[in-house]
Amino acid sequence: MTGPTFSAAHPLPPLADPRGVLDPVTLARALIRCPSVTPRDEGALDLVQATLEGLGFRCWRLPFASPGTARVDNLFARWDSPAGPGRHLCFAGHTDVVPAGQATRWSVDPFAADLTDDGRLIGRGAADMKGAIAAFAAAVSRHLRDGQGAERPGSLSFLITGDEEGPAVNGTVRVLQWMAEAGHVPDLCLVGEPTNPGRLGEMIKIGRRGSLNGRLVVHGAQGHVAYPHLADNAATKAMRLLMPLAEAHLDDGTAHFQPSSLAVTSIDIANPAHNVIPGEAEALFNIRFNDAHTGDGLKAWIAETLAATGVPVTDYELELTVTGEAFVTPPGPLSDALVAAIGARLGVEPTLSTSGGTSDARFIKDHCPVAEFGLVGATMHKADEQVPVADIAALSDIYTDVIARLLA
Amino acid sequence: MTGPTFSAAHPLPPLADPRGVLDPVTLARALIRCPSVTPRDEGALDLVQATLEGLGFRCWRLPFASPGTARVDNLFARWDSPAGPGRHLCFAGHTDVVPAGQATRWSVDPFAADLTDDGRLIGRGAADMKGAIAAFAAAVSRHLRDGQGAERPGSLSFLITGDEEGPAVNGTVRVLQWMAEAGHVPDLCLVGEPTNPGRLGEMIKIGRRGSLNGRLVVHGAQGHVAYPHLADNAATKAMRLLMPLAEAHLDDGTAHFQPSSLAVTSIDIANPAHNVIPGEAEALFNIRFNDAHTGDGLKAWIAETLAATGVPVTDYELELTVTGEAFVTPPGPLSDALVAAIGARLGVEPTLSTSGGTSDARFIKDHCPVAEFGLVGATMHKADEQVPVADIAALSDIYTDVIARLLA
Ligand SMILES: [Zn+2]
Ligand SMILES: [Zn+2]
Repeated sequence: MTGPTFSAAHPLPPLADPRGVLDPVTLARALIRCPSVTPRDEGALDLVQATLEGLGFRCWRLPFASPGTARVDNLFARWDSPAGPGRHLCFAGHTDVVPAGQATRWSVDPFAADLTDDGRLIGRGAADMKGAIAAFAAAVSRHLRDGQGAERPGSLSFLITGDEEGPAVNGTVRVLQWMAEAGHVPDLCLVGEPTNPGRLGEMIKIGRRGSLNGRLVVHGAQGHVAYPHLADNAATKAMRLLMPLAEAHLDDGTAHFQPSSLAVTSIDIANPAHNVIPGEAEALFNIRFNDAHTGDGLKAWIAETLAATGVPVTDYELELTVTGEAFVTPPGPLSDALVAAIGARLGVEPTLSTSGGTSDARFIKDHCPVAEFGLVGATMHKADEQVPVADIAALSDIYTDVIARLLA
Repeated sequence: MTGPTFSAAHPLPPLADPRGVLDPVTLARALIRCPSVTPRDEGALDLVQATLEGLGFRCWRLPFASPGTARVDNLFARWDSPAGPGRHLCFAGHTDVVPAGQATRWSVDPFAADLTDDGRLIGRGAADMKGAIAAFAAAVSRHLRDGQGAERPGSLSFLITGDEEGPAVNGTVRVLQWMAEAGHVPDLCLVGEPTNPGRLGEMIKIGRRGSLNGRLVVHGAQGHVAYPHLADNAATKAMRLLMPLAEAHLDDGTAHFQPSSLAVTSIDIANPAHNVIPGEAEALFNIRFNDAHTGDGLKAWIAETLAATGVPVTDYELELTVTGEAFVTPPGPLSDALVAAIGARLGVEPTLSTSGGTSDARFIKDHCPVAEFGLVGATMHKADEQVPVADIAALSDIYTDVIARLLA
């Protein structure tokens, strides 16, 4: 690491009290001290596994590799109540983090995980999402040691991947496949992503919009501006093709979604000559779409819209990639439990949102109802990523309440 | 010079016969051997001056300099008939040439000016426009030595600049100003630019379209595609502003002009991130306009057209530069004489055109009627710039006839 050097990290207090109840803040700090930048693990999964084995979970390490991607390690852990079978609640999360970036932009060592005097935990992964993993593990420990966990039927599990921030090829997708084959498909899945924009309890995510990337290359014929009849202006043609896309009204939103939107994100010609009509233009665009659409439906709509401009289809090339379909888990037991627990602990009513970027929930939704709730994400992926220590404790309380409500 | 080396140039034959009648091909070769790439002169103006002094012209060397540009030398030469005052015909040309470019792309030394076995003169400036200067000087020598030039009233002059291919700041504009102050404004001016697209005699230019360059910088607000309501897409806004310009019908052409045309020549955003709505876009455009418009009129039209889109004027910056107004010299004595001389010598009727790029005629038209006729321009500014030797001789014959018709 270049840039400032930081003083050695202080020793951590014990992870658990004598009864085995975990301290979520200490566990979060211990996890941050593993610099597990994708695809590296640096002991993070070992720490989670040891902690969960201490609580009586059975653990499976699930390393996966694919051509062209780094081998990534994953963990599935499961506890079945001695009181018998019942609802199976899974917590899904990732121990990998994005790189720290320039060390000089941080006020502390990104992986030291010391607490500030005013009660903040600053470090890479504090919000996204080692804090939430620690909060759920601590909630489980309270359910089992403090509460009546062992007297209630049901199952708890952890799906922890090391490949969420990377290509997401050897992580959650593959673990879910393994879980399906091994008979571990849960009834409900809670994802610990930082869903709150500014304040804990503001927002639960119950789905995500789909995303489609487009690349349009337009061919014309280069020529001199003095002889426009000998040229075919690719800039004009590109605008004729793009305008109906950019100005399209895709929908008015649906029950749980904002309206879909298309953004032309770049147009590039790079012609420095004032007297030359350009012969080629390239444009990029993206659609974020709700459950009124599918990726295939939008692909067809784009092709039709471009064809309707009258520009010959041989004059352009179109590449369309759907990176995720829209999905929603309509309000049900999991979101009900989250809303009730958040209201009880914080006195606020969270929004049930489908906004924002993508997460591994897009894979989980194919197996069971899924909802996301975690810490405040304002600083995620930035320098000085941080959360208030009090938020980790409050989140762990909320998770404890959710487990109690769902495994009642 | 890097690249191939060429054998030493062969010695030139005498420039003139014993009576003082010049050989246009030999004079063209001698001029090409001066590598007068703007702003260098390398003896080219000295050669023209010595040649014209030999024919009885008075010569003025007119070096000019301006802040930020190279000092450039120019020549004005004038002959007044001993038979008394009459029509004053001026020939305007330039001895400077564009760079040779990569020597490896030439089949001969660009400044050796040897003749090929099949009768071509290859060299930088052969077409643009040392060949024409030599042709007119030879025409004058025949008028004075072979014809009855000294018995006819009138004046002949040469306006030869060394700054046509460069910034054109210290050349023709300044010489014309000096000529106006010194009482040398001609009645008619013939410019020797290579006006023929493919075959000698095809085209006379009697005007040029105007040219306007535009640069549009559009400001929006960058944001994430998942939150389009927090962003203001500069790409969409740029297309909204540019489309009414690109699709405008400016006019249907005028008596001597093609329709005016606007070309969007570049649009650039350079946003590689598929998930980021761009906050800034830049576009370039050019208008070639006829005499139905003025630069100021078009500037006002552009401002109105952009304002009519509804995009707030504070959201964009507009730079408009008029590099030349449209002009035309309606058919008159000079073009009549050229048409007649071309018909007599070549048996073809030239088009009176206003097409193509710019020339110093745009400055001369403010002082007197102007027309342009020279060699074939197909290879100008390219590697292996060349003209048939027979074309130089034919052009000199045509010029001789034009002088005889105008100083009758
Ligand atoms: Zn995350
Ligand atoms: Zn020229």
